[in-house]
Amino acid sequence: MTLLLIGPTERGRVWSQVFEEAGERMVFGEDAVADPDAIVHIACWNPPEDLGRYPNLKTVISTGAGVDQMPALPQGVSLVRTFASSVDEMVRDWVLMASLMLFRDMPRYLTQAADGDWCAHPPKAASSGRVGIMGLGRIGRAVADVMTPLGFDVAGWSRSGAPVPGIEVYGEDDLEPFLARTDMLICLLPLTDETRGLLSGRVFGMLPRGASLVQAGRGAQLDMEAMRGALDSGQLRGAMLDVTEPEPLPNDHWAWRDPRVIVTPHIAGQTDAEEGAHHALAVIRACRDGQPLPGLVHQKKGY
Amino acid sequence: MTLLLIGPTERGRVWSQVFEEAGERMVFGEDAVADPDAIVHIACWNPPEDLGRYPNLKTVISTGAGVDQMPALPQGVSLVRTFASSVDEMVRDWVLMASLMLFRDMPRYLTQAADGDWCAHPPKAASSGRVGIMGLGRIGRAVADVMTPLGFDVAGWSRSGAPVPGIEVYGEDDLEPFLARTDMLICLLPLTDETRGLLSGRVFGMLPRGASLVQAGRGAQLDMEAMRGALDSGQLRGAMLDVTEPEPLPNDHWAWRDPRVIVTPHIAGQTDAEEGAHHALAVIRACRDGQPLPGLVHQKKGY
Repeated sequence: MTLLLIGPTERGRVWSQVFEEAGERMVFGEDAVADPDAIVHIACWNPPEDLGRYPNLKTVISTGAGVDQMPALPQGVSLVRTFASSVDEMVRDWVLMASLMLFRDMPRYLTQAADGDWCAHPPKAASSGRVGIMGLGRIGRAVADVMTPLGFDVAGWSRSGAPVPGIEVYGEDDLEPFLARTDMLICLLPLTDETRGLLSGRVFGMLPRGASLVQAGRGAQLDMEAMRGALDSGQLRGAMLDVTEPEPLPNDHWAWRDPRVIVTPHIAGQTDAEEGAHHALAVIRACRDGQPLPGLVHQKKGY
Repeated sequence: MTLLLIGPTERGRVWSQVFEEAGERMVFGEDAVADPDAIVHIACWNPPEDLGRYPNLKTVISTGAGVDQMPALPQGVSLVRTFASSVDEMVRDWVLMASLMLFRDMPRYLTQAADGDWCAHPPKAASSGRVGIMGLGRIGRAVADVMTPLGFDVAGWSRSGAPVPGIEVYGEDDLEPFLARTDMLICLLPLTDETRGLLSGRVFGMLPRGASLVQAGRGAQLDMEAMRGALDSGQLRGAMLDVTEPEPLPNDHWAWRDPRVIVTPHIAGQTDAEEGAHHALAVIRACRDGQPLPGLVHQKKGY
């Protein structure tokens, strides 16, 4: 029952140590696989092309929180994603920072600063801001937990519409009223067939005029040209993007130089290698004991 | 028992309404003063030059949280500053935003973005950040209250060294150990003889190498040239300033164009006019009833 890890060298070093201490078997890199029959788990961001080489494969573990990069897996192989509180908290903090930057007009002040222009505009109190979080998984709930105490009026939108303590939750069919009450739209959705291209001119049109966008979901959810149109018309006031389509965003892309848009290079969160290794150990043990796998991806929902 | 308000027209409009509803007498602007003997309170940012014109003056109320702009007052006249939760919360949010921006390397990412350069650097978890707050008044404590739950290791430094729940507090004589454990230095001190020029090369030298500075106190506390030297030597990594000396910061000042420094034009907080008016009413009533004045400035401490 061996795990094959595919990834950068540093991650290999950390995982090898964690696995050795735990007394579990692991090999790093496909070249190190002596007996493909022994490989029961593969942990990777992008899996090997020929998974058929591993007849006893039971799980593929994404080393990140996302699984949208994963191809369809062979029958009988489970897909698992990594839960790590470190990455949840990092993304939460990036979203909090981005929301405050947009709410407090930083794109405008950065533009003024480039011209040496000291010109103050009346600041807004958090209590006047209506934040709407799309996606109420672990990170979305963590964002609500830190923005509510600042005084923001926080609501959320999720497929299930299941209640979350302390905030108003809108279900799948209530997208329109959710957007109508949202000045600061935060996207933390996974990439699925339903969310691909979701952030469109239609969605921007349902927001109040002058709303802002914080995008920390996946690049393919956002129609960049529709966003540009909404910025030009004044429907959107500003945006901060940590994910784009494609990544890296090409050097000559307009969004880099648009003063209303701030792009960061997918750095909101990064799974800590040690925490990732411990999650993989938990998956291996659950599999061995016939318990539910932590992070198991629902094949139909896609997350 | 009339209050004279000196300030912008919009503030005059709001205060007049609040005073009328409360049944208290107020005049707006010195030109409107018919009987100087009736003026018992003056609310203003900068007071009139000739306070001797008002023989029955009892208090001068600063319309902001600061009083460093105030001249020495005649014997028997009390100086009061305005407490407003709105301004406290706005400054808290600006400080939180600025701290996250520095902690998450925004100056570097903004520089890269200007070149269309998608280059990620490993993000840091809040739990690895040691925040040090200089000044533990209402705002400093509010900043601690929102940064601690994010996982930051927060400590404070205050003249009294009086304990604050949830954080480690260093007293006046413990500046050196306070700075030695601080990667993110936040200044929220009032401007006094003791704090003028405090943020100097000596103080920067006591921080760990590569620390960051968030300045939301008063411009005259910071030696800008010493900061520049600390940035050049790598002792400081970055800085965000909402206050400068002088204000406005001149158009050709180097700080506007230094990629390691972000300047905003004193917009961290602004006292809400209505809340300011209610604070003035509370001062008037306390004065009439012989009660302690809310916001009374200690003449010797200067805040």
